[in-house]
Amino acid sequence: MTHPHAIHAPEAPPSLDPLVTMLAADMDRVNATIMARMDSNIPLIPQLAGHLIAAGGKRMRPMMTVAGAMLGSADAAAREPAIKLATAVEFIHSATLLHDDVIDESDLRRGRETANALWGNDASVLVGDFLFARAFELMVEAGNLAVLGRLASAAARITEGEIKQMAITGQPDTALADYHDVIEGKTAVLFSAAAAAGIEITGASTAHVEAMRCYGMKLGMAFQIMDDALDYAASASDMGKNAGDDFADQKITLPTILAWQDADAEERAFWTRTLGEARFRDGDFAMAQGYLAQHDAVDRAIAMARNFADEAAAALTPFMQDGDTAPLATALANAARFAAARSS
Amino acid sequence: MTHPHAIHAPEAPPSLDPLVTMLAADMDRVNATIMARMDSNIPLIPQLAGHLIAAGGKRMRPMMTVAGAMLGSADAAAREPAIKLATAVEFIHSATLLHDDVIDESDLRRGRETANALWGNDASVLVGDFLFARAFELMVEAGNLAVLGRLASAAARITEGEIKQMAITGQPDTALADYHDVIEGKTAVLFSAAAAAGIEITGASTAHVEAMRCYGMKLGMAFQIMDDALDYAASASDMGKNAGDDFADQKITLPTILAWQDADAEERAFWTRTLGEARFRDGDFAMAQGYLAQHDAVDRAIAMARNFADEAAAALTPFMQDGDTAPLATALANAARFAAARSS
Repeated sequence: MTHPHAIHAPEAPPSLDPLVTMLAADMDRVNATIMARMDSNIPLIPQLAGHLIAAGGKRMRPMMTVAGAMLGSADAAAREPAIKLATAVEFIHSATLLHDDVIDESDLRRGRETANALWGNDASVLVGDFLFARAFELMVEAGNLAVLGRLASAAARITEGEIKQMAITGQPDTALADYHDVIEGKTAVLFSAAAAAGIEITGASTAHVEAMRCYGMKLGMAFQIMDDALDYAASASDMGKNAGDDFADQKITLPTILAWQDADAEERAFWTRTLGEARFRDGDFAMAQGYLAQHDAVDRAIAMARNFADEAAAALTPFMQDGDTAPLATALANAARFAAARSS
Repeated sequence: MTHPHAIHAPEAPPSLDPLVTMLAADMDRVNATIMARMDSNIPLIPQLAGHLIAAGGKRMRPMMTVAGAMLGSADAAAREPAIKLATAVEFIHSATLLHDDVIDESDLRRGRETANALWGNDASVLVGDFLFARAFELMVEAGNLAVLGRLASAAARITEGEIKQMAITGQPDTALADYHDVIEGKTAVLFSAAAAAGIEITGASTAHVEAMRCYGMKLGMAFQIMDDALDYAASASDMGKNAGDDFADQKITLPTILAWQDADAEERAFWTRTLGEARFRDGDFAMAQGYLAQHDAVDRAIAMARNFADEAAAALTPFMQDGDTAPLATALANAARFAAARSS
C-alpha cells in the first residue's frame, strides 16, 4: 500500500448516507432543474423522460458533480453552473439508459416497466436524443468550454464502451483488459468527467481537478464491477432488477471471465454453449452460478471492486489535508466503499 | 412581391454547380476532417459511419456552414473553425439518419442497404450516439460557446420535430401548421443553424448572421417539402430511393394534407383506411397518386417549396449589395431554387 489514507480509513461502516445529507440542498436544486429542463411542448418528451427519471436511482452521477463543486467552492450561489452541469450529467446518463433498454430489449428497469416497453423503441431512441441535446444546451449555459469538452469527450467514450461491449458479447474467452476497457468507457468515464467537471467549473487547481477525475474513475469501476457481480449473486426478487440478465444476454462480465480463465474443458464447453452460442437449457443459470462458486469468481470480482473503491478513497488525499474539505472527502470515501459493499 | 431580388432573379437555370465549385476547396477540407474524425479504435465505428457517409448525398448541410464562413471571411486559414463546425453538422445529420433508419425500419437509403440492415439496429443506435458526441467535441474545438449553443439548440429541436412527426403519423387530418412545425424541426433548423454558425464564427455582424439563419431556414423548408412531394411524384426506379415509403409508413406530409383538405367523403374514407389505419390493399399507392393528381396536390406542394426557395434567395439581400460577396450569394440563391426544382 502506497497510500497512507487507504490504511487509516475511517472506521465508520461504508454508507452513502453522510454524503447524501451533505449534498441534499444542492441535489434539491439539481432535481428542480431536471424537472424544469426535461419539459417540452411535445407532451411525450416530459412523459417518457419523467417515467425514467422519476423512477429514481441514487443519482450517483450528478452527486459527483455537486460534490466536486462543493469541494471547490463554499459559496452556494457560485455553484449554480455546477447545478446545470449535474443536470446535464443526469440527462446524458438517462439518454444512455433509454438507448440501452432499446438495445437490450429490456422490459424492466429498477423494478418498473421500461420506457421502450411502454412507449416503443422509436420514442425511446428519440427522447434519448432529445435529452442528450438538452444536456449540451445546459453545458453551454454553464459557460465553460473546457468543462464542456471534458463532458463531450466522455459522451463519445461512453458509446465506444458500449459498442465494444457489443463486440465482446458472446465471446466467453474475452481478456480481462478488454472488459476493463468496456466498463471504463460505458460507466467509469461519466463518473469521472462528472466529478472533475463539478470542481473544474469552480476554478479549482489542476491537482484538485485531477484528484476528483481519478476518484470518479475508480468509483465508477467499483460500481460497475459490483453491478456485474451482483447479476450472478442474487435472484431477481432480491435485487429488484433482473438477475441473470447478463447471462441470458450473453454479456461477458468479470465473474465469467475469471471462471473461464480457471475452467476445465467441460466448463468451457458449458460457457461456449451458453454465453457463446445462446443454446440455453433449463437450469443453466443455476449451473453457471455453481461453476462461478467453484472458482470463487463472484467473490474475487467483489474483491476487485473493493480494491478500486480503496483507490478511489486514496485519490481524495488532497482534500483530507484541509479542514474545510475533509468532512466531505471522508463522506465521498465512505460512499466509494459503500458502492463496493452493496450486497445481494 | 415585397422582395425586389425575388423579381430580378438571375436568369441562369437553377443549379447547384456554381455553389459546389465555389465551395470545393473548403469542402475538400471538410471531407478530410470527416474521414479523420469518424475514426475510433473500435473498428465498427469507422466501418458503419463510413458506409453511411461514403454513400454521400450532396453534403448540403456542411455546405451551408462553409458558405456562411466564406461570406464572413475571405481568409481560408481563418475559416478553420468553420471547417470543424461543418464536420460537426454532417455528423449530427448522419447521427439522425442512422437513428431514423432504425425508427423507420428502412432497408435502403440512397439506393444502398442501410447501416441497420447490414449491422443491426443496436450498432446504428450506438454509432449514431458516437457521431453526435463527436460532433460536440468538434464544436468545442471550434472554440465559440455562442455558436455551440446555437447548434445544441438545433439538435434538441431536431428531435422535437421527429417526435412530433411520430405523433402525427397515421393522422390524415393533420393541420398544415403542425406539418410546418414538424419539418421546421426535423430539417430546416439544422440547415439554418449550420448556415448561421458558419458566418457567426467569423465574427460577422448580427444582421449578417440573421440573414444566413433565415436563408438556411427557408432553404430547409423548401428542401423537405420537395422531398415529401417527390415521394408521391415518382416511382422507386426513378428516384434511387423508396417512392411510396411515406405512404406505406403512414407519414403525413404536405401532399396528403392538401388532398385531405379538399377531399370528399369517399376520398377521406380512402385516406383513413390507408394512412390512418394501415389496412393497405394492392394498388392503393397508385390510387393515392390519382387522388393527389385530382387536387393538384403534388404540384401545389412544389409551388409552396418554390415560394420558400424565393424567400431563401431574398434573405441574401445584404450580401448582394457587396461586390465581394455577391457572386457567392448569387450561387446560394440559385442553389435554393435548385432545391425546389429537383424533378422526379
